[in-house]
Order: sequence, then C-alpha cells, then structure tokens
Amino acid sequence: MISEGEMMKKYDEMSRQELEALKEELSKAYIDAKGKGLKLNMARGLPSKQQLDMEKDFFDTITSDSELISESGVDCRNYGDLIGISEARKLMADFMGIPADNVIVFGNSSLNIMYDTVCRSMIHGVCGSTPWCKLDKVKFLCPVPGYDRHFAVTEQFGIEMINIPLNEDGPDMELVAKYVENDASVKGIWCVPKFSNPCGVVYSDEVVKKLASLKPAAEDFRIFWDNAYALHYIYDEKPELLEILSECAKAGNEDMVYEFCSTSKVTYPGSGIAAIGTSKKNLDFIKSIITIQTIGYDKINQLRHVRYFKNIDGIYAHMEKHAAILKPKFELVDTKLTEELEGLGIGKWTKPMGGYFVSFDSLPGCAKEIVAKCKDCGVTLTGAGATYPYKKDPNDSNIRIAPTFPPIEELSQALDIFTLCVKLTSVEKLLAQ
Amino acid sequence: MISEGEMMKKYDEMSRQELEALKEELSKAYIDAKGKGLKLNMARGLPSKQQLDMEKDFFDTITSDSELISESGVDCRNYGDLIGISEARKLMADFMGIPADNVIVFGNSSLNIMYDTVCRSMIHGVCGSTPWCKLDKVKFLCPVPGYDRHFAVTEQFGIEMINIPLNEDGPDMELVAKYVENDASVKGIWCVPKFSNPCGVVYSDEVVKKLASLKPAAEDFRIFWDNAYALHYIYDEKPELLEILSECAKAGNEDMVYEFCSTSKVTYPGSGIAAIGTSKKNLDFIKSIITIQTIGYDKINQLRHVRYFKNIDGIYAHMEKHAAILKPKFELVDTKLTEELEGLGIGKWTKPMGGYFVSFDSLPGCAKEIVAKCKDCGVTLTGAGATYPYKKDPNDSNIRIAPTFPPIEELSQALDIFTLCVKLTSVEKLLAQ
Repeated sequence: MISEGEMMKKYDEMSRQELEALKEELSKAYIDAKGKGLKLNMARGLPSKQQLDMEKDFFDTITSDSELISESGVDCRNYGDLIGISEARKLMADFMGIPADNVIVFGNSSLNIMYDTVCRSMIHGVCGSTPWCKLDKVKFLCPVPGYDRHFAVTEQFGIEMINIPLNEDGPDMELVAKYVENDASVKGIWCVPKFSNPCGVVYSDEVVKKLASLKPAAEDFRIFWDNAYALHYIYDEKPELLEILSECAKAGNEDMVYEFCSTSKVTYPGSGIAAIGTSKKNLDFIKSIITIQTIGYDKINQLRHVRYFKNIDGIYAHMEKHAAILKPKFELVDTKLTEELEGLGIGKWTKPMGGYFVSFDSLPGCAKEIVAKCKDCGVTLTGAGATYPYKKDPNDSNIRIAPTFPPIEELSQALDIFTLCVKLTSVEKLLAQ
Repeated sequence: MISEGEMMKKYDEMSRQELEALKEELSKAYIDAKGKGLKLNMARGLPSKQQLDMEKDFFDTITSDSELISESGVDCRNYGDLIGISEARKLMADFMGIPADNVIVFGNSSLNIMYDTVCRSMIHGVCGSTPWCKLDKVKFLCPVPGYDRHFAVTEQFGIEMINIPLNEDGPDMELVAKYVENDASVKGIWCVPKFSNPCGVVYSDEVVKKLASLKPAAEDFRIFWDNAYALHYIYDEKPELLEILSECAKAGNEDMVYEFCSTSKVTYPGSGIAAIGTSKKNLDFIKSIITIQTIGYDKINQLRHVRYFKNIDGIYAHMEKHAAILKPKFELVDTKLTEELEGLGIGKWTKPMGGYFVSFDSLPGCAKEIVAKCKDCGVTLTGAGATYPYKKDPNDSNIRIAPTFPPIEELSQALDIFTLCVKLTSVEKLLAQ
C-alpha cells in the first residue's frame, strides 16, 4: 500500500509535505483495517493449539495399569515426599544442569514458587536474616525491558524496583554492582538469563561470572534466576548459558542464587511441574518453611512427567518439535517487520534464538499509541509499558510481540496491522514535533 | 494375659500390692512386645493402600482421546481461568453445599490454601484492613484437642494461640464469644466442624448459629472452617452439619467465614483438588492477590475430577466405598479398647461417626509416656501433645489414634501394644503417686 520509494526513505528525512501525504495514505489504510472487525491476539506467551495438540499421548502415560510407586519406593498416590520424588528431582536437575540434591520439585507454577520465595523472605527473612517486612526499605533490581509478572510480584509486596538497562549480553553489570555492593536494602535482582522476556537476550559467560562474584552489601541478597526458557530454542543454533549455581559456589557465593524452572512451556501450562534449584543451606531453610505450608505436591504428575520423557534427552527431543512449530512464526515476524519497516528509522526489533517473544522499540513516545491503534483494529498486544516496573516505560517505546499463540495466518494479519500502526503513529509523532 | 478379675477392677481402687503385682505382669508383656521387632504406624491420617487401589480407573479419565475443553470453552491445557473451570467450581460448591459463585478451585492442597490465607492476611490484611504483620499482637482461638497442622501454621506466623475446650457439640461458645467480641487482636478461629480432628465432633446447629452470629471486635476476624471430612462417613448414620456461609449471611456476617475443602481423602492425597468457599467480597480480595501469585492452577486435574465423578452424587457413591473399608478398622479400635480398657478407669475414647481419627484420653500425665513406650515396641503414634497448640497438652493425656492406614491385622497388633502401654503407664503413674 506504500510505494517502494517511500519505503526506503527514512521518516525523519521526509519533508513536512511528504509526511502529510504519507499520513493521509496510512490513515485510509488504518480506517480500512478498523472496518475489518478483526479479533487477533499477540499479547501473551501462550503455546499454540497446534503445539498443545502435538503429543496428546502424554495423557496416556499414567493409566489404571500403572504402578505408581516411585524409584525410592514412595507410593505416589499418598501423602509424603515433600521435596518431590527422586526421579522428578533428577529430571528437573538435568533441566537446570545441576545436581538433584539441589532441587525441590513443587506444583504446577514456577511463578508461584517465585512469589512464595519473595513472600517467605518478607515474613521469615532469608536463612535467619531479618524479615523483609520489618525493614524500612527493600529494593530489587529489574533489568529492563523485563517480565511484567516479575515486576507485579515485587510491586505487590511494596518492594522498590530499580531499572537496570539490559544490554545484548545481559544487565549493565557496572550499575548492578554499584547497587548490590553499596546498598544493603537491595535484596534481589530479577533475571531471565536465557532468551530473556521480552528481548531474547542470553547472558554472556562474563555477565554470569560477574553476577556470581558480586559482593553484596546485604547477606540476604539473592539472584532470582528465572530460567523459564532454558530449552526453548527456535533454530538449530543453541546458545549456551553458563550454569550459575556452580559459578556462585566457585566465587564463594554458594547461597546467592535461586534458580527457577518449569515444564509449563514443555508439556502444558498449568499442568506442568516446577522446581527450584539452590544451595543446600537455602533448600534446608525453604524446606523448614514449606513443611508447614503443605504436606506435599502432586507426585502423580511428577511421575507422569518422568515416565513420559524418560530423561532429559526425552525433553530435548520434545523441544525440537516445539521449535519446528515456533520457527516459521518467528521468521514471519522478522520478515514482515523487515519488509515493512526496515530503513524507515521508526523501529528496531530483536531476532531471538529462543524463548517466546520479540521485543520492538518504536520512536520514543509512540508505544502506547501504537498499542491503542492496534487495539482499535482488533489486534491485542501486551500493554505498552508492561515490560517496565510500575508499567512505566520512560521512553514509551518498548512493545512486546508474542507470536507463539496465533495460527500463522492470523499472525500475518496481525503483523500487517501492527506495522501499519507503527508507521501511522510515527508519522503523527514526527508531524507533532 | 491379664486375668478376668483384674480386668474388671478399677486401677485406682487397687491396693499398692495389687498394683505392684500387675506392674510386674505388664512389664513382662511389655518386654516381650519390645522383643518382637514390630514396625507399625498409627500416626497419621493416611488412606490405606486398599483404599488407594480401589478405583484405579480414575487414571483412565483423561487420555489422548479426551477433548480437554471446559464447559465454558476454556482449553484446559493452556494458561488461564485463575479461579478454576466452572464445572470444577460447581462440584466443589456442591461438596460444601454452597453456590458455585462463592468458590475458587486451587491446586492440590487445602492446607496450602489455609496457609496462604493466613499469609495473605499477614502481608496484605483482610479486604483492606491493616496487615497483621504490622500489628503488635494477633491471636487465634484453637478448639482443643485439634489439628496439629493448623496450629503449626499459626505458630509459624508468630500468632498467639488460645486454647478453647472442644465440647461434644463444638467449641465452648461462651469462651469463644468472650474472646472474639472483646479482643480486637483475636483475628481467627480454627474449626474442623465435622468429624473434628481428632475428636470426631460434629458441631451442633446451635454452635454453628452462635458462631455465625458472633459480633467480633475485629472487622478482620474470620472463621477458618476446615471442612476436611464433609463427606467422610464411616457408618450408615450420616450426621448433618449446618451450612455456615448462609448462616453467617443471615446473621449479617456474610464475610466472616472461609470454608476449605479438598478431595485429598476422596481421590488421592497430593493429587486431589482443593477449594475455598467464601463471600463475594472475600473472593474478590483473594483474586486480586492470587492473580499476581500464579497464572492458574491445574485445570486438567480439575477436569479429571469432574469427568470421573460426573457430579456430587458420584462422590457420595465413592465415599460409601471408603466407608466400607474404614468401618471394620474403627470397629476394631473400639472393640479392642473396650475389651482391654473398659472399666479400668485409665482411659476414655471417642466413637466417631466419620473422619479419620479416634481421640484417646489417658490418666493425666501419661500420654507422653504411653507414646514413648509404644515407640519402643515399634508402634508409632502421633506425638503426645500434637493435638494442642505449641504441642503442649496441659494434662498430658490426649493421644490421637489414626486407624485408617494400617491393614487390619497390623492395626490389631498395634492396638494390643497400645492398650498394654496404656495399662503399664497407668500402673506406674498410680504407684508413683
């Protein structure tokens, strides 16, 4: 709909007249789009129906014929085994690349574990430290753009969040060290170290080592290492992440990290299993608290997962099938954005090697309006600002694109709307300057 | 082993000489018992293997052929539906005899919901009240003997627990009213209103009405109504419990109660589903907090339960089969205790119509020693004192007998040891006076 000549010219190099003409053209397309009555969703990181349909035999793993005794002789149908059956601890340990002794397998949600971990620290402190709720001020570092649900947790507990720029190799470590090593009220940092949400960043070895060798002012400072996408590759290229528990131990900071993971985006969201990996001391403290919170988690579902996958190689193979579904979607995003926006100087985006998101940065001050315009055309995006603490993106420019859920045809339509709205909003912005 | 004449004579009417002779005889039997190397457990309220083996086809309910869409069109394999799928809310509502709109279905553990409900109140208060962790003092009323895990929750949060005698129709309501209506630091009461743990008491209609019409000094006072054994009858006689939510509403106390239940002792401990039933206002507040804690609970397992039972009648029929397994065990306990202890004046016990426990009261000052002696003979009982807050039974007399788990032969052996240890301890006690 836009001619080739216009495509190639940077918007900020256009004359006012050119911009006015472009605006008129784009506005017509926008009105057309609004008229179509679309209802498309690129908002959340949901697996697609195609993916969920893929290996239904998961549900045939446990049947009336199954022997439901764990390897260590526990009847998985009865109470007990608070920290998870041994074979599930092993599977999730292999998921994280750490020893099984460092793992507790919980229920269905790693977010729930993270929430409870913050909550536990509020009420009981960390391994004997002062409960955070008794302190005047508790702060968390938040690499940005980041995961909205992390920020929502710390916000709910009244924890002050500090933005840390996320670079291509991980958080700005100079700034992280400045805060962590000088301010004892800084108690945590949220990290999605591999295929970060939404930027797709994989923390470099150097960043992991720097994190592991921090010298925190607070003894109860902890790294919240949400390894949600540990095995969620899209292409054949599989970037590696340095294993942080052993790095922390090497640096004399054995107790400084909690690692979280789950099979929510391996088997089924809501019906997966989730785990924490951390030091013996942290585990013992967590056990001493959760033994009052519950009698145990769903061991049948733990067994179902172990018997279905057999071992970590089973999960690797399974994730290859996911990748085959995700790859064309991520390629389509990049193709569409490149076709429509490249060279215009009105947006840049990531090309992640894994995870669930593409991160888009518009011209400053445009993200909210782009999301609103998309909404008017029936395309739901994650709310602008969601990728920042308190939903405040200082530049109003970051938008999280979640291409995993919609079928490819719908994704294509949604991306057409998106690029149109980016263009129109950008023109309006430039004209208003 | 004890002659008929001795059997009938009350221990405290025996001469010192008679007691000495009896002690010698019992001591021999006790040494014999210790030598047997038994390993029996009457400690915890676990379902038996026989019960768990009973309806294995539960695990065939969801298979690769199943359509996993809920009645309201939600794909149970994906994220969403925080408060539970509608049909599971209905099932658990019928379980409690309340409307589905008043229900949230959670994960696998009602204890976990109770813990989180106390925790939430500590951090966030109750529907806008001051967070309990900001108050100098928070108190809970604890009808005793009661459930050790309830007391452990309030103890962990530093909540002061006040013993309330549990009568045959429920807690001493005069005392409850005195505390609740005059002390604003009293924020809750733990109740197991039907087949209470361990006494098997069913609260009378009068007690329920009195509870429902309390006029609490604290606006954030709540009744924690753990209806764990709502459908867990042993005999054909099925005592009814008045439905407390509607009683509270009638009395103008709509928001004063949280009801908890689960299928842990209906299907499988750890792999069941659990729910809360409460007022709309409470539900909305809970939702506003848990929406940050998790994205949702295990909807597949919710669906599995609904599809297996079809409706509440399916659960009723299922529980009849449990009763058939439990009945001979509870009858054996009563028979053994009657045969060995009746008329001796050294113990009394309950004959519950439902639930999982028999409550035994020894002579004052004997419970710990009885449990210790049983342990020496290889019979594990719930720790003496466990049925009281802080594990402090002021009379050292209450012992919880849990007959559900052991096979009937083992239960019989364990009861022989138990009655022997009751006798020997009682004689020793009387001789020491």
